[in-house]
Amino acid sequence: MTNLQAQWIVGFTDGEGHFGVAINKNEQMTMGCQVQPEFNVTQHYRDIKLLYALKDYFGCGVVRKNKGKNDESKVFCYRVRSRDHLNNIILPFFEKHQLKSTKQQINSRKVKKVLRLMDSGAHLTDEGLDQIRAIRSKLYL
Amino acid sequence: MTNLQAQWIVGFTDGEGHFGVAINKNEQMTMGCQVQPEFNVTQHYRDIKLLYALKDYFGCGVVRKNKGKNDESKVFCYRVRSRDHLNNIILPFFEKHQLKSTKQQINSRKVKKVLRLMDSGAHLTDEGLDQIRAIRSKLYL
Repeated sequence: MTNLQAQWIVGFTDGEGHFGVAINKNEQMTMGCQVQPEFNVTQHYRDIKLLYALKDYFGCGVVRKNKGKNDESKVFCYRVRSRDHLNNIILPFFEKHQLKSTKQQINSRKVKKVLRLMDSGAHLTDEGLDQIRAIRSKLYL
Repeated sequence: MTNLQAQWIVGFTDGEGHFGVAINKNEQMTMGCQVQPEFNVTQHYRDIKLLYALKDYFGCGVVRKNKGKNDESKVFCYRVRSRDHLNNIILPFFEKHQLKSTKQQINSRKVKKVLRLMDSGAHLTDEGLDQIRAIRSKLYL
């Protein structure tokens, strides 16, 4: 197993990380959609060991093939969607070890804001959902 | 100025770095082309501070706008093309602080191989140029 140091993880995340909020239609949910804040890092299959090393370091999340139009894609990702793990493992790590890029700093703060809104049940009301969509629309791509 | 730690640079390079060899037509050169091994890291303009921090850390290289089809592009890069600086600053740094991704490890070794060939004047002969082109064709994209 590849051993990682905190500053390497920060640098790798500044380069390759992604803090985002997926909003997917789901008729089984109260509001007809599911809000999923997430942290992910993608890599070509040849370096999948780095994704497993992140999973091992954080002790949460999954490594999976990136879904795409192309089934032959060799792009994989390490992904954390559990609100509990984002709140208690991932975000505290990046608060202790600050990201250096403006993009990642801002996006991680916006994901944190969405998590706080969800803690108060905002994703279960029209108004709250609009607030979440507004935050999501301002994430850096 | 953003202060960088070695492991952050390694992580950032594993994510965003590029070791490559440009071969451009240049009628003024002996062989009608110029071989330019290089190390670069690209970032959106909003995080240009990170590119200047790398330049400051290594004490070599330039920060410039990425040339592209689109003049409106806001992508910038930190680039080192000097053989002296690649040989004596950049590659020794990544030998001391090992890259973790297979892609970057292999590409940096191939760039080093091209630099060794150039030290012995290989880029000034047809045979050597073929050798360099063969190495270049095997770089991971």
